[in-house]
Amino acid sequence: MYRRLLALGLLSSLPAAADEGMWTYDAFPAAQVKKAYGFEPTQAWLDKVRLGSVRLAGGCSASFVSPDGLVMTNHHCVRSCIEELTTAKDDLLAKGFQAKTAKEERRCPKIEANQLVEMTDVTERMNTATKGLSGAAFNTALKKEMAAVEAACTTGADVRCDVVTLYNGGKYQLYKYRRFQDVRLVFAPEFSMAAFGGDADNFNFPRYGYDVSFVRVWQDDAPAKSPDFLPWAKEGAKEGDLVFVSGHPGGTERKSTVAELEFQRDVALPQTLLQLAEMRGALREFTSASPERYRVARSSLRGVENGLKALKGRQETLADPAVLARKRQEEAELRKRIDANPQAKALTQGMWEETAQALDAWRRMMNDYRMKGAGDAFRSDLFSYAQALVRAADELPKPNGERLREYTDGQLPALKQRLLREAPIPAELEALTLTFGFNKLRETLGADDPFVRTVLEKEAPADLAKALVKGSKLGDVKVRQALLEGGKAAVAASKDPMIVLARKVDAETRASRKRYEDTVEAVLKRNGERLAKAYLLVNGTAGAPDATFTLRLNYGQVKGWDDNGKAVPALTTFGGAYGRDTGKEPFKLPAPWVKAKGKVPDATPLDMATTNDIIGGNSGSPVVNRDGQVVGLIFDGNLPSLGGRYLYVPETHRAVAVHGDGIMAALEHVYGATRVVNELKGAQSASAAPAR
Amino acid sequence: MYRRLLALGLLSSLPAAADEGMWTYDAFPAAQVKKAYGFEPTQAWLDKVRLGSVRLAGGCSASFVSPDGLVMTNHHCVRSCIEELTTAKDDLLAKGFQAKTAKEERRCPKIEANQLVEMTDVTERMNTATKGLSGAAFNTALKKEMAAVEAACTTGADVRCDVVTLYNGGKYQLYKYRRFQDVRLVFAPEFSMAAFGGDADNFNFPRYGYDVSFVRVWQDDAPAKSPDFLPWAKEGAKEGDLVFVSGHPGGTERKSTVAELEFQRDVALPQTLLQLAEMRGALREFTSASPERYRVARSSLRGVENGLKALKGRQETLADPAVLARKRQEEAELRKRIDANPQAKALTQGMWEETAQALDAWRRMMNDYRMKGAGDAFRSDLFSYAQALVRAADELPKPNGERLREYTDGQLPALKQRLLREAPIPAELEALTLTFGFNKLRETLGADDPFVRTVLEKEAPADLAKALVKGSKLGDVKVRQALLEGGKAAVAASKDPMIVLARKVDAETRASRKRYEDTVEAVLKRNGERLAKAYLLVNGTAGAPDATFTLRLNYGQVKGWDDNGKAVPALTTFGGAYGRDTGKEPFKLPAPWVKAKGKVPDATPLDMATTNDIIGGNSGSPVVNRDGQVVGLIFDGNLPSLGGRYLYVPETHRAVAVHGDGIMAALEHVYGATRVVNELKGAQSASAAPAR
Repeated sequence: MYRRLLALGLLSSLPAAADEGMWTYDAFPAAQVKKAYGFEPTQAWLDKVRLGSVRLAGGCSASFVSPDGLVMTNHHCVRSCIEELTTAKDDLLAKGFQAKTAKEERRCPKIEANQLVEMTDVTERMNTATKGLSGAAFNTALKKEMAAVEAACTTGADVRCDVVTLYNGGKYQLYKYRRFQDVRLVFAPEFSMAAFGGDADNFNFPRYGYDVSFVRVWQDDAPAKSPDFLPWAKEGAKEGDLVFVSGHPGGTERKSTVAELEFQRDVALPQTLLQLAEMRGALREFTSASPERYRVARSSLRGVENGLKALKGRQETLADPAVLARKRQEEAELRKRIDANPQAKALTQGMWEETAQALDAWRRMMNDYRMKGAGDAFRSDLFSYAQALVRAADELPKPNGERLREYTDGQLPALKQRLLREAPIPAELEALTLTFGFNKLRETLGADDPFVRTVLEKEAPADLAKALVKGSKLGDVKVRQALLEGGKAAVAASKDPMIVLARKVDAETRASRKRYEDTVEAVLKRNGERLAKAYLLVNGTAGAPDATFTLRLNYGQVKGWDDNGKAVPALTTFGGAYGRDTGKEPFKLPAPWVKAKGKVPDATPLDMATTNDIIGGNSGSPVVNRDGQVVGLIFDGNLPSLGGRYLYVPETHRAVAVHGDGIMAALEHVYGATRVVNELKGAQSASAAPAR
Repeated sequence: MYRRLLALGLLSSLPAAADEGMWTYDAFPAAQVKKAYGFEPTQAWLDKVRLGSVRLAGGCSASFVSPDGLVMTNHHCVRSCIEELTTAKDDLLAKGFQAKTAKEERRCPKIEANQLVEMTDVTERMNTATKGLSGAAFNTALKKEMAAVEAACTTGADVRCDVVTLYNGGKYQLYKYRRFQDVRLVFAPEFSMAAFGGDADNFNFPRYGYDVSFVRVWQDDAPAKSPDFLPWAKEGAKEGDLVFVSGHPGGTERKSTVAELEFQRDVALPQTLLQLAEMRGALREFTSASPERYRVARSSLRGVENGLKALKGRQETLADPAVLARKRQEEAELRKRIDANPQAKALTQGMWEETAQALDAWRRMMNDYRMKGAGDAFRSDLFSYAQALVRAADELPKPNGERLREYTDGQLPALKQRLLREAPIPAELEALTLTFGFNKLRETLGADDPFVRTVLEKEAPADLAKALVKGSKLGDVKVRQALLEGGKAAVAASKDPMIVLARKVDAETRASRKRYEDTVEAVLKRNGERLAKAYLLVNGTAGAPDATFTLRLNYGQVKGWDDNGKAVPALTTFGGAYGRDTGKEPFKLPAPWVKAKGKVPDATPLDMATTNDIIGGNSGSPVVNRDGQVVGLIFDGNLPSLGGRYLYVPETHRAVAVHGDGIMAALEHVYGATRVVNELKGAQSASAAPAR
């Protein structure tokens, strides 16, 4: 990317870029879209698309595509479900899945779908609660008030309420969601087709992934009604078309200070990257040992590789001198304007020094926090069950406002769902990750560290991990249920080795987390808020808030780009996919595709690139046209877009989607998925275009 | 380390530090030592210690410790030899080794020992040859002249001549070594004791490693005479004692510009670290699968882990804002002085811009260069044999001055030794590393890259790697010999798949290397030289040159340090080692140690920390006292010292050695190594102290 920035002379003079911004629905710049593309979405249009958008609780986006609860998302967004439904004998992840009838649709125990039904501003309430506070007191008061607001809003198990932080705390809103906890798998292609090209093609373009799946939300054991669905477009998207993406971008840091970005570049990212790289090496070797090992760990491997590549892209963006130079100049200009505005100046008094101190403190406590507070030393599903049970026993008896955030009343349904879901835990893989964590613990804090000795005693990491996995009964949902319901007494009496370990380390892991939250997180959060307010004061507008896994809408167009002099096209085709087939993973087309060769015209679009400003969390977002109709399904970004965490570069950043025509063509002609096709087409005819 | 720098207020005001400097023998600051420690080494003292010092061609240091060619070095410096002598039935690496008679001493095929016998300044010759040249022309002329000088000096197989670059090219010297190619193993402890504490304790202190081994140089099938040996000290080193370290530090970058350091921090180190971390994960998993896999890969794993930890220490040093702030200030001051000096100013005209351009070019070509030119895509012993054979066939017919540097006459003996040594190549490990490289190639350059297609065609990396390893006969030394002797015709006719691959990629890998050398290396080298000369002009003295794996002497004292308020002692003891034994790897004391418990008094020193300024390559260096007698054996540095690549911090940087008393006590009472003990003690009485 730096090459592009340098070549384009963009070193320091980029204006707020066209097509940039992950906008909240209540502040969508409709007039700006009209100016750029000649189309202005109405409030009805916006409401319709918003209500057609779905959030998947694990960190993905989706959309209703029929009035009967049919939901479209990426294969990789429901991969964990498909994996749980997979057995050694019936490998759904490898083969794909189709429910021929409603009855054949299979429940995804981990997946929860949310629909955003209401947004209320609660900035005033939060500000009042934290007025005059800083550090730990600020953090405590904020969390207490959030818990209170959420608890009052959460009127039942089918409602989820989150106080969401926008503009780094410049604004707070209460988002109320309708919860769907019964989500069932309807259609999935083969893993190898969803991720065609594997890690090699991930974030690359041209690419040929069919990262598509359909699930359905059920209610009272029947398909739920979803009147606010997005109908399938009658005409596919073409190069240059205006398109919108509605989804849940997970996180950006475009308003971060230079000091925070340098910290990411020099300290935080390198540490995370090294752990991911090592884990990747271990998982690759593990999966290569046998088909069964491949089966149980392929999804973890894919997740690790995806994270590694994405974070590497971030690190490389921040290592680009042109990027930091631009950020430095923008910050210098902002500080000049703040200094010239007495109110903004007062608001940010001492802020820069405080941020520097908090980052220095973070640097010093990072090893401690990562291992203990953030749990890097305990990479294990069984341990995380144990920890949740131990903490729930301690937290639930407390008043709501005094609990750790994830044990507050508003979060309880999600916690229970996580603890009580049926999901197999492969013992060998569990031992691998736990060994990895224990080794990291010892090498990070040193063999002489008292906490390391508490955890390992005189054991070797691998031996201890194996013994814990073998000895623990927490893989049994009934055992977990008994401990959850038994509360403090049951947990205290448990001799399960994983519970024993979780009890033993709980005081210190909590203390480590508290040190970080009070000394680092609270300061950076409050300063982010101060800076956001000052920004608003001196610039009059705040632009789009940083992404926070809340629903956003953005606009752009179907468009290729120039990759160092090489023109990259906007669309790839079925013909291209057949051309790329080598017969060897990860470039091996699955049998149904090979068989269907010729049935779909070669020129039919398969994937497409658009200028929409998206980021991780947007996976599964619908791409819609002016009529609010589905023309694609976001599943990736190109390599340059990995820098989108920090800035948007219109010349090179591209979102990558499965093209609507491609989705439909493969459903019909490759998979013969008549039931889904008919439902989509029926919905298409039933639907009236929303008011423009 | 940053903590120390910040806490000590050393952010920008460190003077040239006490005990800093890896000095060449011809410019040792004896007067400075006298001022600091009251002892001034004479020329006779210096000559004696120099001639007692040994370089091991693989990248280690050593010393003569008897008149009969007995050489002391680290276990990890001869680990590859011990591994080659190991079989599944007779695991010398696990068990250790002792030759009870001269006849039982076993040849180390890969190991070559060099003794520095002469140093001649050739700066004038090199300057004349490169006068007025830059870029590729500069590089070509320099290499040609080096080859000519070395060829004229290399009068036989027992002579090695290297033109060494000092002060980044501010000075060139011709180093003439006596070569010993028949090196035999005399004594080695268990791998687990040499590396006691494993990766967890590597670069940590207090530690308890017994990283010791003895080899012997032979000549004409009899032990070689070595009159210039270093005798064993009669009295061991104590805290506060002045000690010297004579050895071959591999490389420092203390004179690098800030732009180069930032490049290391942001671009070069992160890439290398990620590869090492991933390889570590793979090797850990590989070695955990079976005892046989552990046996064949443990040494590779240890090497990767050592590199990872060392480079991580470097990255963390450069990520310390205090370090870069200091470097920036030093550079600003230097530039001010240069600007005030017309001669220095003229010398460095345009230099900073050129360096920035070369670094930008490097950044752009780094992926290409690493994969092709540097060979990261082809991680395989068999491939490196193939490449050497293919290139030797092309290069050897050329005039000496026009060859690639490693095929010049001066380098030929080393090349032949490498190609014609007997060394087993474990097929599974070879396939693992080759697969790793092919995967990296594809993910780094992309599946569509023409070179990637040339290498992989339509194969999967793992399948291709396995087929190549299985199909190649280059593991057989006779096959290699035939190809080497058969020259161009034999290589061209070979159907060995590894030779075929090496032929196929040779043009492009050479071109990639040349692009890098001409555009990046040559510019940075020439600018380093210009800056070194300007430095000398404005400062009057150049200090010690950066380390370049040439013989250096430095001084310091036995001393602990303050680790964020915790006092770390200077010595560890046998009692401490027994206390640390958990019975589990990597903290499991081997059986002979357990058996010998109580025979050596608990208070006997085992390891020690000193303030000597050392770095990788110093492994195996003798630690000597004022009398030039051995009091220890360098094998490690502490964690802060990993930043020694860029700067020396006297408060915290420590060299770590096995204590002389500990070496002797374990030889006598743990291993019953009577033969070595008697030889060391005999040499001790026979030797007269060198003239002070």
